[in-house]
Amino acid sequence: MGTQQLESVPEPKYWHLKTVLSEALDSEFSVGEILPNERDLAARFGVARATLRQALEQLELEGRLQRRRGVGTTVAPPRVGVAVGSEQHVWPGAVGDAWQPADCTVAVPPASVADILETVHGEQVHTVRRSRVTHGQPVAAELLYIPASSVPDLSAIDAPSGAARARAVLRELQRLELEGQDRAVELGSARAEDAKELDRLPGAPVLVVTTRFFAEGRTAAVSVATYRADTCRLTFGDSGGVEIHHDPERRAS
Amino acid sequence: MGTQQLESVPEPKYWHLKTVLSEALDSEFSVGEILPNERDLAARFGVARATLRQALEQLELEGRLQRRRGVGTTVAPPRVGVAVGSEQHVWPGAVGDAWQPADCTVAVPPASVADILETVHGEQVHTVRRSRVTHGQPVAAELLYIPASSVPDLSAIDAPSGAARARAVLRELQRLELEGQDRAVELGSARAEDAKELDRLPGAPVLVVTTRFFAEGRTAAVSVATYRADTCRLTFGDSGGVEIHHDPERRAS
Repeated sequence: MGTQQLESVPEPKYWHLKTVLSEALDSEFSVGEILPNERDLAARFGVARATLRQALEQLELEGRLQRRRGVGTTVAPPRVGVAVGSEQHVWPGAVGDAWQPADCTVAVPPASVADILETVHGEQVHTVRRSRVTHGQPVAAELLYIPASSVPDLSAIDAPSGAARARAVLRELQRLELEGQDRAVELGSARAEDAKELDRLPGAPVLVVTTRFFAEGRTAAVSVATYRADTCRLTFGDSGGVEIHHDPERRAS
Repeated sequence: MGTQQLESVPEPKYWHLKTVLSEALDSEFSVGEILPNERDLAARFGVARATLRQALEQLELEGRLQRRRGVGTTVAPPRVGVAVGSEQHVWPGAVGDAWQPADCTVAVPPASVADILETVHGEQVHTVRRSRVTHGQPVAAELLYIPASSVPDLSAIDAPSGAARARAVLRELQRLELEGQDRAVELGSARAEDAKELDRLPGAPVLVVTTRFFAEGRTAAVSVATYRADTCRLTFGDSGGVEIHHDPERRAS
């Protein structure tokens, strides 16, 4: 290889600091360790507090640092790959479902969900809350919206609420035959309720996975799943179950 | 449906404000319109500036608002669904490739990429910069890392740099037969270079899609693609090309 070119793009000051800090995290700190306070860090690297804060924010977005309520800023463990393919977002209630039902209410869904379900705005639908736990850690909270038309024979008498109600709704949903599903991932902010469940601050950035389940030629249910963006990377194995390499050794100190 | 339960979870003040603001955006503002300044907004809704700012930040994370340098805070258009399946992240350089090569350098990749490529840390690899444009808008910037071992017959003589060099590298890469690929999505922050290309501020939240391309029983190339998180939702069609519904009418005013 004959050509060697150095990258010539100028980078802002905090960006250089971020790189230096990132290297310091690798070499001097271990996972879970609390960082020195901002004043000490700014002094050590000879930068203004504002510059330091920008760099810390970047490292938090990239999953290298965690800000934890009452603890301070700590070195984050490497992100965990969480598979979000069809095998993990199965037809709700089917065998092998990774999600635990917690509750079920009847509520008006957000307008965006009503549009997908093609229900009238303001119409109530069954709303099942579920959670997904990986390695003992809650990684995602889900709201599953099911219009009454998808569970026509549901009885209101047995199990009027709670997890038992959720299971009854899913059992009815299983009577439909799943024809297909699709999925979208986007950035969102943690709702207060989800934040609590995921042990995050309300409004923290999250990855929102919206899954449409098709049955009887229409959208029979919509899942809006909120994954922790700080600790998770979502993996999609197009090539038949090949797993993304997590590089756990990369950030070991 | 006999049961009707109101959601009983207490929500913080800014969260309620966010909902109210979101409704105001729907009914009173049109896409691209500049919001009144913070003082006026805080006065109108009878909240403290800090509360208002929190609500605005949430709405920005959720893609409802955009903060633009020198413009202010504007009402964002609905997010656009950008497909990121195997059809869009094809074997680089293959027919139908959605990515435009812009440049090619030889550089040391980040440690995380070196780990995936199983190259020695500090070893240089071909680094092709490409961009993806949808509806005339740049939606993603990519760095494609290709170790010398994946393009052994590449000549350094013709096209030593630039887009021509990038095309020469991809042409060589095409000699390998693609055996499979997988993909991961995670939250990141825009590098200065990518931010410029995507018309964002450096450090803005982005969705980072890492694709591993397998050939000859190993990882032959790694793509790290940075998608705008404010304007894009990434779609994965598991069910044979069913498209996510974008609800463009939802936020029309």
